[in-house]
Amino acid sequence: MPTGTDEPRHTPEKTASARLESNVRSYCRSLPARFARARGATLEAADGTRYIDFLAGCSTLNYGHNDPDLKAALLDYIEKDGLAHGLDFYSDAKEAFLEEFERTILEPRKLDYRLQFPGPTGANAVEAALKLARKITGRHNVIAFTNGFHGVTVGALAATGNGTHRGAAGVQLGGVTRLPYDGYLGADVDTAAILERMLADPSGGVDAPAAIIVETVQGEGGLNVASAAWLRRIEALARENGALFIIDDIQAGCGRTGSFFSFEQAGVSPDIVTLAKSLSGMGLPFAVTLMKRDLDQWAPGEHNGTFRGNCHAFVTARAALEKFWRDDRLQKDVARKGEILRERLEAMAKKHPGQTFTKGRGMMRGIDVGTGETADAIVAECFANGLVIETSGGHGQIMKVLAPLTIADDELARGLDILEQAMDAVLGSLAVAAE
Amino acid sequence: MPTGTDEPRHTPEKTASARLESNVRSYCRSLPARFARARGATLEAADGTRYIDFLAGCSTLNYGHNDPDLKAALLDYIEKDGLAHGLDFYSDAKEAFLEEFERTILEPRKLDYRLQFPGPTGANAVEAALKLARKITGRHNVIAFTNGFHGVTVGALAATGNGTHRGAAGVQLGGVTRLPYDGYLGADVDTAAILERMLADPSGGVDAPAAIIVETVQGEGGLNVASAAWLRRIEALARENGALFIIDDIQAGCGRTGSFFSFEQAGVSPDIVTLAKSLSGMGLPFAVTLMKRDLDQWAPGEHNGTFRGNCHAFVTARAALEKFWRDDRLQKDVARKGEILRERLEAMAKKHPGQTFTKGRGMMRGIDVGTGETADAIVAECFANGLVIETSGGHGQIMKVLAPLTIADDELARGLDILEQAMDAVLGSLAVAAE
Amino acid sequence: MPTGTDEPRHTPEKTASARLESNVRSYCRSLPARFARARGATLEAADGTRYIDFLAGCSTLNYGHNDPDLKAALLDYIEKDGLAHGLDFYSDAKEAFLEEFERTILEPRKLDYRLQFPGPTGANAVEAALKLARKITGRHNVIAFTNGFHGVTVGALAATGNGTHRGAAGVQLGGVTRLPYDGYLGADVDTAAILERMLADPSGGVDAPAAIIVETVQGEGGLNVASAAWLRRIEALARENGALFIIDDIQAGCGRTGSFFSFEQAGVSPDIVTLAKSLSGMGLPFAVTLMKRDLDQWAPGEHNGTFRGNCHAFVTARAALEKFWRDDRLQKDVARKGEILRERLEAMAKKHPGQTFTKGRGMMRGIDVGTGETADAIVAECFANGLVIETSGGHGQIMKVLAPLTIADDELARGLDILEQAMDAVLGSLAVAAE
Amino acid sequence: MPTGTDEPRHTPEKTASARLESNVRSYCRSLPARFARARGATLEAADGTRYIDFLAGCSTLNYGHNDPDLKAALLDYIEKDGLAHGLDFYSDAKEAFLEEFERTILEPRKLDYRLQFPGPTGANAVEAALKLARKITGRHNVIAFTNGFHGVTVGALAATGNGTHRGAAGVQLGGVTRLPYDGYLGADVDTAAILERMLADPSGGVDAPAAIIVETVQGEGGLNVASAAWLRRIEALARENGALFIIDDIQAGCGRTGSFFSFEQAGVSPDIVTLAKSLSGMGLPFAVTLMKRDLDQWAPGEHNGTFRGNCHAFVTARAALEKFWRDDRLQKDVARKGEILRERLEAMAKKHPGQTFTKGRGMMRGIDVGTGETADAIVAECFANGLVIETSGGHGQIMKVLAPLTIADDELARGLDILEQAMDAVLGSLAVAAE
Repeated sequence: MPTGTDEPRHTPEKTASARLESNVRSYCRSLPARFARARGATLEAADGTRYIDFLAGCSTLNYGHNDPDLKAALLDYIEKDGLAHGLDFYSDAKEAFLEEFERTILEPRKLDYRLQFPGPTGANAVEAALKLARKITGRHNVIAFTNGFHGVTVGALAATGNGTHRGAAGVQLGGVTRLPYDGYLGADVDTAAILERMLADPSGGVDAPAAIIVETVQGEGGLNVASAAWLRRIEALARENGALFIIDDIQAGCGRTGSFFSFEQAGVSPDIVTLAKSLSGMGLPFAVTLMKRDLDQWAPGEHNGTFRGNCHAFVTARAALEKFWRDDRLQKDVARKGEILRERLEAMAKKHPGQTFTKGRGMMRGIDVGTGETADAIVAECFANGLVIETSGGHGQIMKVLAPLTIADDELARGLDILEQAMDAVLGSLAVAAE
Repeated sequence: MPTGTDEPRHTPEKTASARLESNVRSYCRSLPARFARARGATLEAADGTRYIDFLAGCSTLNYGHNDPDLKAALLDYIEKDGLAHGLDFYSDAKEAFLEEFERTILEPRKLDYRLQFPGPTGANAVEAALKLARKITGRHNVIAFTNGFHGVTVGALAATGNGTHRGAAGVQLGGVTRLPYDGYLGADVDTAAILERMLADPSGGVDAPAAIIVETVQGEGGLNVASAAWLRRIEALARENGALFIIDDIQAGCGRTGSFFSFEQAGVSPDIVTLAKSLSGMGLPFAVTLMKRDLDQWAPGEHNGTFRGNCHAFVTARAALEKFWRDDRLQKDVARKGEILRERLEAMAKKHPGQTFTKGRGMMRGIDVGTGETADAIVAECFANGLVIETSGGHGQIMKVLAPLTIADDELARGLDILEQAMDAVLGSLAVAAE
Repeated sequence: MPTGTDEPRHTPEKTASARLESNVRSYCRSLPARFARARGATLEAADGTRYIDFLAGCSTLNYGHNDPDLKAALLDYIEKDGLAHGLDFYSDAKEAFLEEFERTILEPRKLDYRLQFPGPTGANAVEAALKLARKITGRHNVIAFTNGFHGVTVGALAATGNGTHRGAAGVQLGGVTRLPYDGYLGADVDTAAILERMLADPSGGVDAPAAIIVETVQGEGGLNVASAAWLRRIEALARENGALFIIDDIQAGCGRTGSFFSFEQAGVSPDIVTLAKSLSGMGLPFAVTLMKRDLDQWAPGEHNGTFRGNCHAFVTARAALEKFWRDDRLQKDVARKGEILRERLEAMAKKHPGQTFTKGRGMMRGIDVGTGETADAIVAECFANGLVIETSGGHGQIMKVLAPLTIADDELARGLDILEQAMDAVLGSLAVAAE
Repeated sequence: MPTGTDEPRHTPEKTASARLESNVRSYCRSLPARFARARGATLEAADGTRYIDFLAGCSTLNYGHNDPDLKAALLDYIEKDGLAHGLDFYSDAKEAFLEEFERTILEPRKLDYRLQFPGPTGANAVEAALKLARKITGRHNVIAFTNGFHGVTVGALAATGNGTHRGAAGVQLGGVTRLPYDGYLGADVDTAAILERMLADPSGGVDAPAAIIVETVQGEGGLNVASAAWLRRIEALARENGALFIIDDIQAGCGRTGSFFSFEQAGVSPDIVTLAKSLSGMGLPFAVTLMKRDLDQWAPGEHNGTFRGNCHAFVTARAALEKFWRDDRLQKDVARKGEILRERLEAMAKKHPGQTFTKGRGMMRGIDVGTGETADAIVAECFANGLVIETSGGHGQIMKVLAPLTIADDELARGLDILEQAMDAVLGSLAVAAE
């Protein structure tokens, strides 16, 4: 918990980071603590200050920091000189992960996916997915959506809507047609119909697509939620147009919305799925690209990468599946806590009518506070009071609650209390300032 | 050591990998053991078979597997619930790494670089480097070289020469002009002069470059070595043409050629340097993009990525610098073992005159055996006899020796013995077959 | 008039065209006469058969074939050895054209444009327009619209929606974002709002545009008409977003919709305008790119081309302006005949309710007959009865009436009679076939 | 002939061109006469001043201005209301041209080409050629050469080396690999070997080419001449690599080097040939793309354009073939005058040793005077003395003599006298200035 003193808890200007780390660093600017340790939903700074973590590595730490069982498995593996790096060798660690993934994730859901380990980042998983779709179809065009976020390497970046990231490409980003996401034009405009019309029109100017790539909930894009009906429409349009249907489940997957995959409730069957972030369970770099068995048309080595088999991550990912997904306890708990979250956020929004409204699904929820400036002020106020939380959306105007799924009820409540007080402080003062 | 029986030591067709892992997997095909443990230069399969490792994760394990000091540092960190994942937060682990890197690497070499953590893969480090160069210069064109390898995400892939990887892009790769590397056209043709002429010619058709990106030794490209004079010419051409001079030191850096950076002997001063592979010291995903201080023109967050601060890697990377680079013992040892390696390889080449010749520098050496088929047969023979080794080059025709720098002399000798016998077996039998 | 015999009037299989001309030829397939002479609205085949011309070179012959005054001016010029080809030299012919264009077109409309002669094709005028917009803004992205047609050279083709032409590019077409044209999504969806929303959204994924390029009536795209209000919205969006507002008036300009420029009624002020087709008045290759004076930021020679000053076309273009645009007689006549055309087409459409409906504006009108097959059958029937007419639209489903603006009332009526009978014959027989 | 007075013969600042024409105009700046009439090799300004024409529309007027027979054919055609514009209709004019081209050009040379009329500019012919090659091969990459000039529309511009033109593209130019032309690296470096090596190398980074496009003599690029042996090497490399061999004969064709096609002497058999410039014979916009019969894999209408059948040009082109190519008189005369030209230019070069040297072939010759500034001064001096001549080359350093092939011997001699005197004046004065 914050000390309450006026003393700066961290003086970044004297640190090695300030001297040596590139200006490109970002989170450390709005959340300028020097973190040392972390467990569960608690981050601890070097000076002992503790913070409740409502950022969770942008949904990378769905099971909290240093879960004791995952940690134990990893320690045991390292102590025994388990293979740490093995390119894409067969290994005990990989076998155990694959068997667990098959047993606990694929088989119960009757999914017949193969797994590609494409380099341990989400961007790499997306690059692999797009390459594969283009290879299979012989087409170059990919349909992506407004506010979609798929990574910042050039291939993934072309599918990403964010202007700051796109602007840094330095080359023209091609091969992607972007169209409005569900709800983007208001409740009255059916955005799937736009896509349908343009694809059906020989002069619509949308080249025949290799794939349609979509997030079920746009994390970075502002917690925009696609309806199940819309997702089914998009899937059907992909099928009708000979395109692969790709769900990028990097942020919304691994239980964040309740089920392991975020698309389970929608009843769709994506051809390719990308996973990363919380897949390793402990925050270790790890990603997979899932593809339907008949779509595994890669030649050996066509897509590679030095770190494509992160053995430590195999160990913790296996332990996470074993602990959290062999039964439905976590899923039910997320559903329950998701409701708590929804109710609390809606209550907060009601206190600032016309200024705020809630967004999201499951434990991937937030509140739109109107502007990025307001949101930044709330972030700062929360941080001063011991809560790590961040924003998303095109204008950074969404307070995004991404607490660990495993957070204790009282810690969740305390974090929400801090958020509520911060909103009152900032939005109240704004209201006063506007008078 | 290999068992010597005819029994397959591993039956991959029954494994989870065979059932579930994408066809894209590659090394496990030529080296089909199921690895479990590893230490130093020794890999151990699940069935207890041991192998000498002359692949070392393609130069990712320069200090061997599970170095006891690195391992101890990591275990200690995890046990104490050290922050495992923290986006780009300030952290104790990052601070300690940066301080060590400054003290041990930058200051003694009088280098004034800032560090960007661009996502924990070499490809990501290259993507960041190219973006930055394009941003700074406002130009899109990058000069790269034949047989250069810089990664397979679309931005990096455009600079990569390998046709198999390029062919998998599915989109047109643009923004790169490729010209012949040093020695590519034989000893008589000065390839730097081609670049010079084309850049100087207003109708040469080479758009003004943002950067020239080069490896000092092309690892994947076939152990081609650029001379110091050529590198200085290229650097001068970059300066004269307002382009940044980028050295991709992902495979050749971290001591592989003797010095920490592979370009130290050449007396050049690259504007941007990429490092990855052995940087973490223990095979954990980790990469940095170094840029001269005045070139750090990133805006906060312009290039990001979930795993851009791998805390475990900060810990082991710091420990590796502390152990191996505070003094010059490793560097001298690499020089010594590099000579042993050179002598042994030249002796092998002399046994097969006209068929083979040696290549490389430092402990990044190999032997060209003429064709990929021959090389594959040698790989298989080595593997059967307990040596893990792989090939490189456009045709896969180069036997590439990338032993850990820390390998014991006798283990190095045993590995080279196996290689020599395998070459005799394969090249001898080829000679017989040709008769 | 057609002979009425069953004899083929033209046996293309024995011609030099059939032996020697590429398969790419197209109009000669649906309209397989061998034409020899033409005057006004009448085409005459080598065998003496005459046809009323409702195609008019796709609006290239707005003043009919071989207008006697234009012809006389050209003959006089050639007889006196007037300069035929002079690159971009100053010349009497160019001066006279420019003076006439200034006096008759620019000054009365208070337009302060400069003229670029970019090579004598519409595609070239578009290429020049897009280059200039990109040069001025330093941006690469151009907004274009569904069903827009701007030419088939690679730069122009990127902005063209037609899938057949796009598919022939052989390279990825980039640098263009395509969005729905006015009315594309039905009367209820405001397509300008989609553009507005995506441009305003920092994560909308539409890179800051260099230009928005639009036709006021989409000729090739199917006679889709943009409303004046929509055009003003698009112009305003261009201004707000720092983009140039380009009107491609190649098909709709030169009086086709009534006024010289098709955008005059809408009250917009495009930054750049492209003209070609009827500009020379006699069907000679000729094009201009108009730009506001302060936007003439070309360096000498940046865009060039051997035929960029077609002196014969300067002569006939001047004569056409002098004859047809010094007063408002033509404009009024087009308004009057446009109404005749509208009434006749609406009457035809009423005869086939549910199957057909009218489209277009001024003397750029047509009738949607449902499918390309139906339209092709009507084209063939018309041709057999002495009317040259063609189709447009994404499916080729629009019968497009592009009679010379100067057509006599009785000839217009006779042509429309033939069209009406052909529609009856084809749509009647279709109705029978469907029973 | 020049008047010899000091009075400006033309005051461009008061003209409509100066008021209204874009800054992009270029030739009129160095050759600022206002031209009115022209015949044969003589240009006549509005004020009566006459000039010998050594520019000939950059080789567009190989038969001189307003050749009386071509002019007579055109006048007759227009007077009889011959079809002026007919899209790609069959027509008498087209038939007659095709029959003459078949009889006079194709059959005697045993060439089995089909003709595409791709829009009446050279750039359009190149765009069509590249599209077709990409369509046939399913590959996107095209090999082009340093200093190649193929036009400025985006598809052609990608293959053009000129930096000024490339810089005006505003978009990234892709799909082309550029390598050194014959002799580019001096006499000692075999540039075909570079191409061979890079294409043969799986990691050479040159994507499998759709085509290699080359000029036999680079007109705009500086009168660089490819040897017959080099052209045959390039052709063989195209064949071996499954690429089409395209010769862009737009400037060097139509007799400029002696034979109708510039490649006849080399014994090569290009798959595709582009022609434009002098093809119409009288300077009218006209272009063809020739393709071997089995390569005519266009679908109807895939590449189109409003002005793709310029009927007036069909008439004059037919007349030109009939007059100049039914026998070998012109060809022999060009050979003879080419020798005169060579001798005179060599004599001039000898007068300025170390400063100048000759270049070119046939009647496509020139003299390198070291710098663009020197060349510009010579152009100005020539112009003042009644000779129209221009420069080429990357630095504009080549005085390019492109007199009409039909120029009378005495007129050629007088033009060369003026050039010689101008060189003496300029290079002499430079020598003085340097002292």
